[in-house]
Amino acid sequence: MAKSLAEKKYTVHFMPDNIDIAVEPGANLMETAIAAGVHINASCGGASTCGTCNVLIQEGQVKSRRTDKVSDIDYARGIRQSCQSRISSDLVVKIPVESRLEKEVLSQEATGIAAPAPIALATGWQFNPPASKLFIELPSPTLKDNASDLSRLLRCLRQQYNLDNISVEFSVVKKLARILRDGNWKVTATTLLDSDSGQRLINIEPGDTRLGHYCLAFDIGTTAVRGQLLDLNRGKVLARGIDYNGQISYGEDVISRIACCRKTGGLKKLQRAVVATINGIIKGLVETAGIEAGEIGHMVVAANTVMVQLLLGLDPKYLRLSPYVPTINTVPLVGASSLGIDVADHVHLYSLPAVASYVGGDIVAGILGAGIYQRKTVTLYIDIGTNGEIVLGNSDWMISASCSAGPTFEGGGVKHGMIATTGAIEDFELTPKLEPKITTIGGAKPKGICGSGLINIVAAMLKAGVIGQNGKFNTDLPTKRLRAGGDGYEYVLAWKAATQIGKDIVFTEIDIDNLTRSKAAMYAGYQTLINSVGAKFSSVEQVIIAGTFGNKIDIENAITIGLLPDLPRDRFIFIGNGSLLGARLTSFSNDLLCDGQRVAGMITNLELSENADFMNNYVAALFLPHTNTDQFPSGKIKEMQH
Amino acid sequence: MAKSLAEKKYTVHFMPDNIDIAVEPGANLMETAIAAGVHINASCGGASTCGTCNVLIQEGQVKSRRTDKVSDIDYARGIRQSCQSRISSDLVVKIPVESRLEKEVLSQEATGIAAPAPIALATGWQFNPPASKLFIELPSPTLKDNASDLSRLLRCLRQQYNLDNISVEFSVVKKLARILRDGNWKVTATTLLDSDSGQRLINIEPGDTRLGHYCLAFDIGTTAVRGQLLDLNRGKVLARGIDYNGQISYGEDVISRIACCRKTGGLKKLQRAVVATINGIIKGLVETAGIEAGEIGHMVVAANTVMVQLLLGLDPKYLRLSPYVPTINTVPLVGASSLGIDVADHVHLYSLPAVASYVGGDIVAGILGAGIYQRKTVTLYIDIGTNGEIVLGNSDWMISASCSAGPTFEGGGVKHGMIATTGAIEDFELTPKLEPKITTIGGAKPKGICGSGLINIVAAMLKAGVIGQNGKFNTDLPTKRLRAGGDGYEYVLAWKAATQIGKDIVFTEIDIDNLTRSKAAMYAGYQTLINSVGAKFSSVEQVIIAGTFGNKIDIENAITIGLLPDLPRDRFIFIGNGSLLGARLTSFSNDLLCDGQRVAGMITNLELSENADFMNNYVAALFLPHTNTDQFPSGKIKEMQH
Repeated sequence: MAKSLAEKKYTVHFMPDNIDIAVEPGANLMETAIAAGVHINASCGGASTCGTCNVLIQEGQVKSRRTDKVSDIDYARGIRQSCQSRISSDLVVKIPVESRLEKEVLSQEATGIAAPAPIALATGWQFNPPASKLFIELPSPTLKDNASDLSRLLRCLRQQYNLDNISVEFSVVKKLARILRDGNWKVTATTLLDSDSGQRLINIEPGDTRLGHYCLAFDIGTTAVRGQLLDLNRGKVLARGIDYNGQISYGEDVISRIACCRKTGGLKKLQRAVVATINGIIKGLVETAGIEAGEIGHMVVAANTVMVQLLLGLDPKYLRLSPYVPTINTVPLVGASSLGIDVADHVHLYSLPAVASYVGGDIVAGILGAGIYQRKTVTLYIDIGTNGEIVLGNSDWMISASCSAGPTFEGGGVKHGMIATTGAIEDFELTPKLEPKITTIGGAKPKGICGSGLINIVAAMLKAGVIGQNGKFNTDLPTKRLRAGGDGYEYVLAWKAATQIGKDIVFTEIDIDNLTRSKAAMYAGYQTLINSVGAKFSSVEQVIIAGTFGNKIDIENAITIGLLPDLPRDRFIFIGNGSLLGARLTSFSNDLLCDGQRVAGMITNLELSENADFMNNYVAALFLPHTNTDQFPSGKIKEMQH
Repeated sequence: MAKSLAEKKYTVHFMPDNIDIAVEPGANLMETAIAAGVHINASCGGASTCGTCNVLIQEGQVKSRRTDKVSDIDYARGIRQSCQSRISSDLVVKIPVESRLEKEVLSQEATGIAAPAPIALATGWQFNPPASKLFIELPSPTLKDNASDLSRLLRCLRQQYNLDNISVEFSVVKKLARILRDGNWKVTATTLLDSDSGQRLINIEPGDTRLGHYCLAFDIGTTAVRGQLLDLNRGKVLARGIDYNGQISYGEDVISRIACCRKTGGLKKLQRAVVATINGIIKGLVETAGIEAGEIGHMVVAANTVMVQLLLGLDPKYLRLSPYVPTINTVPLVGASSLGIDVADHVHLYSLPAVASYVGGDIVAGILGAGIYQRKTVTLYIDIGTNGEIVLGNSDWMISASCSAGPTFEGGGVKHGMIATTGAIEDFELTPKLEPKITTIGGAKPKGICGSGLINIVAAMLKAGVIGQNGKFNTDLPTKRLRAGGDGYEYVLAWKAATQIGKDIVFTEIDIDNLTRSKAAMYAGYQTLINSVGAKFSSVEQVIIAGTFGNKIDIENAITIGLLPDLPRDRFIFIGNGSLLGARLTSFSNDLLCDGQRVAGMITNLELSENADFMNNYVAALFLPHTNTDQFPSGKIKEMQH
């Protein structure tokens, strides 16, 4: 956009971040916040339907379209939906607590404090990174030996490293003559092994630069992006970084992101948003480790199929339409800088291959990292989220499915739901008098309920008889906490005065209903996979729960509500972020990289969306824990003991 | 360069082309002519030393540095060296006839009239172009078969064409989803076979586009660029084009071009100049054939090593310095449009591999096209020019050399020398009264002498005794044509009134000397190669003369002066433009492409610049025809008959 310097601009000051930005008159306020780097919650991606991006206009004027997401009282005190507001003067804007995303919780995770070490891991692999640095001393040319610079280099690579049939990138050719002479015929070559085209010569530097040999491993999640800086000489993690995926402002889940791509320029915006997030993380990683960004020679990414397509700038529209076809599962190497990523031009981006539209490289990374493909043990791998991914199998066979669990586990579709940041209710108990004992993330005043909190609330209420197996409140109970609200019966978790948001935080029957549907979708997914191979739940020898959300789940409570199958507790293993684990291992070992491609190829995906068995299983699971209580013997035993 | 619109500009009008251009005050006049597309002769590349870029300022003012290249009389009438002139007003500039390059002769060649059919050709090859178009009908995706778009395509390529392990360019991935659906699951894939990385998928189009499947073959010579448009379905040449290499204005030979690269921005200017020439030719080819430029799917180039490096934007400076090392002999595929060539983004440029700094892909193309590597016949392959290239061998062995013959054969270093365009004296006889009978190219009034003319002049004078074997004029002869001039003795070929240039056209002893050195370098080259393998001239069973200059040589006269060895005349074969022939064949046949790479690898290059045997042979050849007359029995027989 070419702009005349004379054009009038308005200044917008965002609170509490204290960030200023100058914008054109008429600019959209939500997009302005994104441009300013102010994290804002916008679940629906600016479609005006979610009401989570509301802000308080403290000074100045906006032109706002009013929807039913802003109450009369709020409107009067200056609350506006930022996605529906255009800037018409200098502004001071406050992002209210419920519209803000906070980095604290993520940061805690980044330091590694909250990340438990995985206890199921791939074994037996060699440390042989796909990217290598090779030091070469070349004989100077003479009249008797005046082979071309490139022939000389290739000859030495053959003689000194037994490397044959290496293909050479033109960018190397362009600087080769200068680098060979700058280095006085001592140079360091960077090679990259690619399964398609074999060894590639991707960079050449003067002198011996082998000591500086780093790689980036990234997990690009729909919600958060996590990066690690790896030392390829020592196989160590030098620094960890994390941030919200900048695409959140355009929609919280993959479906709303895909919808965003239907708008003109939408795909480009999403692509730039996630690249900006990645670049921010890289900057931090490089600073923390005290290395030069130019010493990074490779990059590995694990992400779900939609995230991969958006990162590469590929239109994901067909992913959303039946029969759910992605453009690619196995992504060719792509020049990272050509995508806008702030690394040297020779760095290639390797994406872990996907299985299907909704079983992506992040899951393949997890299967790889957990070594499931190496063992005979029949394993159920579960990644719980808006899109729940499930893999069942062992070293001989694997079958996968994805089930649309809905956003409940990330706080979506829940009256006071929120993602797992400061102030979210994450643990819950009931006193004998049916009073709540709540624990929030960061110990702050409560602001809402996160996914793990929901599970713990429903389990506690179910056990106490506050909720029946049909998901309805027992309205006869002697407590003022239970009352009829706007959305049917509700339980007051925290009275207005004790909250950050200035109103009662409640848990409604609709919320229970949504959670029940979500857990039913997951459970029906396991069951359909198990049925499809003619097995039973008891055949599952190991359950691996992946993902940062999975990490926070209380297994006992999850079984109580029927989200996890009722198996002996010692069969459950938390693996943490399997996606990042797989990305890291793939950076370290070409063996594992090849294994990853084999794993993606060996998994058979079962499409659940029009599967009759899945529908039956789903309906049967719409009880707490399940219609068929034989499947949950623990609950029955407890009842008997009761 | 950002320019204020308000800045003053001058208009320069070039005659006789009638081309106008607006320039900044102080702009260099030669560069302005180049920018305007006015062909101008500038042998020294603007170093002021050659005096060939003189122009007539008809109106307006220039600020000019005066050198001895402009006589007092010429200076008075407005002649200026364009390379030494800066523009200080609006101008009308006439390019005098001797400073102009004319396209007529080249155009004649382009129509094929002047190009004899080669009579030595590679045989036994299959028509299997490296670039293929494959039509594919894909099954539409279903829930039971919802593989990714790319997996589906690759599966069909495997099933329908037995193509496995194909690597996919990211540009194809980017448009794949759209093209598959636009084509309703019927598409045409373009694949390219690369010796490094195997089959590549480089393009995808909706529907069946197999009929439009074309390739460009180019010979990029130091002086002229020749292109052909090939139909890859029928193996036919659809159109031919030719133009002077736009780099001529920066220097006539490769050495002055390399020198030009030492200047800031010089390499970029040269790169752009040859690309502009190529683009002009492509435009003409596409128009002539009546095809769409987008239907061109591949491009093959044969050129000497310096031309290849300049085209790719690689600094050629080390080519000029001992030990004469090029950056690359075997060039990886390069995106043609990334070099500025006006073709679709998926078109790759393949350059025939070179042997050494001065034995390039053009020579490999010729060896390939002439099929020398296929026969047991011991062949001497000769490409005569400023840089003379020689290859000796057969299917079992080959040895090459290049000798710096100097610019004589292209009219350089000769008082009235010129390249072979209209008005150049190309044939010459002497009457018994020692009067000249001259023939000029195009039948025009004489303007100068071209290389083949020089050979014919010296041969005729040698036979008539006007010149002795030592290269000196016999000054006792009764003719006014022989006289003492500024450069020693000279023979007047044409009196002033009969010329285009308004002065006597003469041939001097210095000219004879230069021609003798040039032919001696070539002859010493053959001899050194033959000696190096312990053979004799009589072992050579076939002499193939390549190049457009070679085509014009009178064999008998060339033997008379000692430029060609005195072998039975039926052993000599003209092959014409071997470079373009090889480029075309390589476009048609992957077998031949592989052969070309094998040929480049099997040729041993002998560096002559510090070779003692070469120096001896050279000194011995500084007689007409040679010090050792045993080597030229024909001459002795004639003498005996005389």
